Amino acid sequence: MHLSRYFLPVLRETPSDAEIVSHKLMLRAGMVRQSAAGIYSWLPLGLKVLRKIEAIVREEQNRAGAVEVLMPTIQSADLWRESGRYDAYGKEMLRIKDRHNRDVLYGPTAEEVITTIFRDSVRSYKDLPKNLYNIQWKFRDEVRPRFGVMRGREFLMKDAYSFDLTKDAAREAYRRMFVSYLRTFARMGLRAVPMRADTGPIGGDLSHEFIILAETGESQVFCHKDLIEGEIPASDTDFRGDLTPIFDRWTSLYAATSEEHDAERFAREVPADKQVSARGIEVGHIFYFGTKYSEPMGARVQGPDGQQVTLEMGSYGIGVSRLVGAIIEASHDEAGIVWPVPVAPFEVAVVNLKAGDADTDKAALDVKARLEAAGIDVLLDDTDERAGAKFATMDLIGIPYQVIVGPKGVKAGEIEVKERKTGTRDTLPLEAGLERTITRILDQRVLV
Amino acid sequence: MHLSRYFLPVLRETPSDAEIVSHKLMLRAGMVRQSAAGIYSWLPLGLKVLRKIEAIVREEQNRAGAVEVLMPTIQSADLWRESGRYDAYGKEMLRIKDRHNRDVLYGPTAEEVITTIFRDSVRSYKDLPKNLYNIQWKFRDEVRPRFGVMRGREFLMKDAYSFDLTKDAAREAYRRMFVSYLRTFARMGLRAVPMRADTGPIGGDLSHEFIILAETGESQVFCHKDLIEGEIPASDTDFRGDLTPIFDRWTSLYAATSEEHDAERFAREVPADKQVSARGIEVGHIFYFGTKYSEPMGARVQGPDGQQVTLEMGSYGIGVSRLVGAIIEASHDEAGIVWPVPVAPFEVAVVNLKAGDADTDKAALDVKARLEAAGIDVLLDDTDERAGAKFATMDLIGIPYQVIVGPKGVKAGEIEVKERKTGTRDTLPLEAGLERTITRILDQRVLV
Repeated sequence: MHLSRYFLPVLRETPSDAEIVSHKLMLRAGMVRQSAAGIYSWLPLGLKVLRKIEAIVREEQNRAGAVEVLMPTIQSADLWRESGRYDAYGKEMLRIKDRHNRDVLYGPTAEEVITTIFRDSVRSYKDLPKNLYNIQWKFRDEVRPRFGVMRGREFLMKDAYSFDLTKDAAREAYRRMFVSYLRTFARMGLRAVPMRADTGPIGGDLSHEFIILAETGESQVFCHKDLIEGEIPASDTDFRGDLTPIFDRWTSLYAATSEEHDAERFAREVPADKQVSARGIEVGHIFYFGTKYSEPMGARVQGPDGQQVTLEMGSYGIGVSRLVGAIIEASHDEAGIVWPVPVAPFEVAVVNLKAGDADTDKAALDVKARLEAAGIDVLLDDTDERAGAKFATMDLIGIPYQVIVGPKGVKAGEIEVKERKTGTRDTLPLEAGLERTITRILDQRVLV
Repeated sequence: MHLSRYFLPVLRETPSDAEIVSHKLMLRAGMVRQSAAGIYSWLPLGLKVLRKIEAIVREEQNRAGAVEVLMPTIQSADLWRESGRYDAYGKEMLRIKDRHNRDVLYGPTAEEVITTIFRDSVRSYKDLPKNLYNIQWKFRDEVRPRFGVMRGREFLMKDAYSFDLTKDAAREAYRRMFVSYLRTFARMGLRAVPMRADTGPIGGDLSHEFIILAETGESQVFCHKDLIEGEIPASDTDFRGDLTPIFDRWTSLYAATSEEHDAERFAREVPADKQVSARGIEVGHIFYFGTKYSEPMGARVQGPDGQQVTLEMGSYGIGVSRLVGAIIEASHDEAGIVWPVPVAPFEVAVVNLKAGDADTDKAALDVKARLEAAGIDVLLDDTDERAGAKFATMDLIGIPYQVIVGPKGVKAGEIEVKERKTGTRDTLPLEAGLERTITRILDQRVLV
């Protein structure tokens, strides 16, 4: 992509209405613009990150055997009356009357919709187990939306729903998502710790939140230090096999959100030098809730003995749009965002120091073409800004590597390669510089 | 994908509430389920088609120089008051009050949102031309939603918005989208004819609808027969060059929707044997409307002479979810859907005729692996249904090629290859059968 043809409205000054660093940086880097309170438009740079996160979530859901569907944003209130949640759900539900005065709503979650689809389509235990997920916009009418996309009203969520014949099978489904989530967040460069959590309005009796630690976190969390460096399950993990050992290893150490925290147990079970008490950001939440929806909604299948069995269910959320902010909270410095390669909007910025100079233009286009031929995602700064402003923008928007092409280097057959994370800058012969950049990016693309 | 692990709830009987063939077939093929009046959930098979259509639209928008953004579904009513459309827009707008009693709405289109973003971000003519597009769910509260996804209330639309300094530049932007649309629909196996059309509630003085001809079309259209086989611009068309010759060639022959139809001119300009009067389905609609939004909303940039210039704009829609139905209307037979390869949910169905038989299972898995190694998208029917039912399902869901693996063939080292479109079935040696299938699919993947 040529920057001159792109749409990247960066801001030199920090917007005064943004409270936390990710919100400030997303506005400054031209990633989002607020269109209404808690409602954002995603500009090209932000959308690219959102899509990369979405793709990782999708790949890991598929790997774990979940199948993708897409449910609508607008749901019928009657479905929520069937489950008994319509009146119980508070003011966060955006309630709407359509032109025929029928009650509809903007889905904050989709247990009712998916349970209906499943009930009307599946008759036999032979079609189980199933886990259906979707990545769709949701709406929660927060009383005071804030923190940018971290607590917006309209947000992108991955929500999966498992259907099983027995409690044991449902717990297996739960473990599959648990293990899948460990991989999902690690692939984005995040260390998310699963913590026992309250089930809240979703219901049920087993629940974990996946929390990343960050100073600006919204809630207090407590865990054993070893969990922060716990071993991430490999990509060839057999999701059709027994995942109990992995699940047990990750749940044997103390970890709890403040609602579930037991100070006495924490003190007793965790050695003092391993006690972590920190602020956390929730990026995923999984629930096993048995027959809470299937029972009132009549979702049953025929079991092996011919009897009707009420389905055992769970649901599994990931805050996809929230993750964009969460990754920035976890990875930034004074100059701006520091994207991990797997979610970077572009992997390399080629900075042309003298746009309009025929030789430099040619060299910069050549570097871009060489990198793209290696499958690298490149942004070419071909504008006539001054060098300092160009470097500042590329630092701000967090591109992992900058390859700097200037008239002096072109004459000498050299390029300068800057690594965003460390700030190191090296002048190298063209071939060596390209090779090193390509190798480093490919190495960092797959983190687990 | 193994069918046993997939979610494909096909219906043997035609649903009584579906009026047109695409709606019937989408329900029967397990592609969608209605969740509320005019609101559909997309099941895995339907979603795969939707995503393939979306990917083609995206590729062609990018090729034409448009840049992708993503605007929210919920918009502030105040924006629509600025443009003067809030009161003018009828009951099709889903009007909502949030918890603070503020007026919001579910966007039926996004001229106001994008104009605001542009106005607040772009200051100089140097940043022009720009075309920003998004592919996002829209809502129109149709009084009588019908025809499945063809006239649903919640639908997926690609909407692009161009910003230019002068009328001439805006007309160039219009031609870029015009040419891009010809390619977009042709790549899906559709022949869409651009027709002069009424501008309706969007406004402006230049507009074309892109119409595919189908007996079940919603409106009467009139055109010169040669347009139906007009030459599609090649993939290496220079979208930064002058597209006037292509535009003129396509607009020199008569083509009009019923609102714009001039019977006398039609009779005069089109020879009797070239007169086509048919039913059509609108799949795209483009508008040039000048300063209709930029003027009231104050969207201006500094021109080369330092003066403020009000932006010239156009907008360009494609009905992404509607296209799923439109393609089926244009391509089906008595047995079911006949997908063109570029939008087929799977390209090959490997039908295992004796699931559970060790040799046949092994052979079927081997065929699947060989096809997948060639990059083919494969569905393996590994269920224990009887052969007739398997063939009927694969015909119904319209997979372009079936590779049939049975115990007799396995012994003889043969497979049977069936082409969905022609119905031809050939028994071939394994290697020859695989090679032919792969070659034919690769040939049909890129239609223009």
